[in-house]
Amino acid sequence: MVDKKRLLERLYKIGGIKFGTFTLKSGATSPVYIDLRQIVSYPDLLRDIATAMWAQVASINKDLICGVPYTALPIATCMSLEHNMPMLLVRKEQKDYGTKKMVEGVFDKGQTCLVVEDVITSGGSVLTTCELLTTTGVAVKDIVVFIDRCQGGNENIVNKGYHLHAVMTLPEVLELLPRQVELNDEERAAIASFT
Amino acid sequence: MVDKKRLLERLYKIGGIKFGTFTLKSGATSPVYIDLRQIVSYPDLLRDIATAMWAQVASINKDLICGVPYTALPIATCMSLEHNMPMLLVRKEQKDYGTKKMVEGVFDKGQTCLVVEDVITSGGSVLTTCELLTTTGVAVKDIVVFIDRCQGGNENIVNKGYHLHAVMTLPEVLELLPRQVELNDEERAAIASFT
Repeated sequence: MVDKKRLLERLYKIGGIKFGTFTLKSGATSPVYIDLRQIVSYPDLLRDIATAMWAQVASINKDLICGVPYTALPIATCMSLEHNMPMLLVRKEQKDYGTKKMVEGVFDKGQTCLVVEDVITSGGSVLTTCELLTTTGVAVKDIVVFIDRCQGGNENIVNKGYHLHAVMTLPEVLELLPRQVELNDEERAAIASFT
Repeated sequence: MVDKKRLLERLYKIGGIKFGTFTLKSGATSPVYIDLRQIVSYPDLLRDIATAMWAQVASINKDLICGVPYTALPIATCMSLEHNMPMLLVRKEQKDYGTKKMVEGVFDKGQTCLVVEDVITSGGSVLTTCELLTTTGVAVKDIVVFIDRCQGGNENIVNKGYHLHAVMTLPEVLELLPRQVELNDEERAAIASFT
């Protein structure tokens, strides 16, 4: 059983969670910054995060796994290796010549692919990956994320007929983390402004 | 100890090695097609290829590991997880906004990074990755590949002061594979035309 508090503590200590004033991609500001890009530098943490995510979807039906590029690629690769689950690779960049496929890997039409993402905000990147997969004939039903920021992502995913599985939500992060690590006044104020 | 012949046989059987007439990215034709993109669909093979590659560089000095996107990313991730070696992630696409870093992960200037690639032809993609890494202050000395096509890649790498480690060369593939699998006349003719 994965200890969520301990995972959050490790993520905080490597700078993957920060409190202050941050500008999101959408232009809106947020008192919480969450970024899992640096987990590639901590293979043990990468594995533990992948394990916690897998636990959310261990029992659901799936034939394939696909990470949203780039941050979720190592997470999906870890799951694939640990559970001997074939992976599909979706490219992020535009095709630069005709023969380059946007989805790499072997699959039969109608097979079900689990989509893996690190953090979901509005769900835009996740839905791009889902669309690429379904266009090639792979069925997508479930999406697993480490943290759901609860900023419309779940609604957008449900509207498309998918199901979201999250290890944690942002409110849970804000509830659990202050109990686990020593935060300064500024950090506590940032959290208070949010909740 | 990894059995090279057996690895080649498995790669051939999943369509990762083909004989015929193929057009390379350079425009030149080749009687041999080698493509490791589909190994993501066979996690056991992915792991065995990563193991064979790691064996080539197990004893060299390295603090970090980085795969050339995309095919080598899962190979580098596998090595990172198996050997608890911090990874750096290099993006392939152009930056679409200012703050996006081309190299993700934690490192100290002067640390040495092993570069991982699946197949090397002229070495162009490998050298792009090496340049991105060295520009950020990481030292690159060694590059490990699964197959060296012996088409100028090694020379180009040595000219830049790097050292290439390959599990196999293309002539070795052409020598070992016909002993291991049943090839048809057309396939044998393609090999004969090359050697």
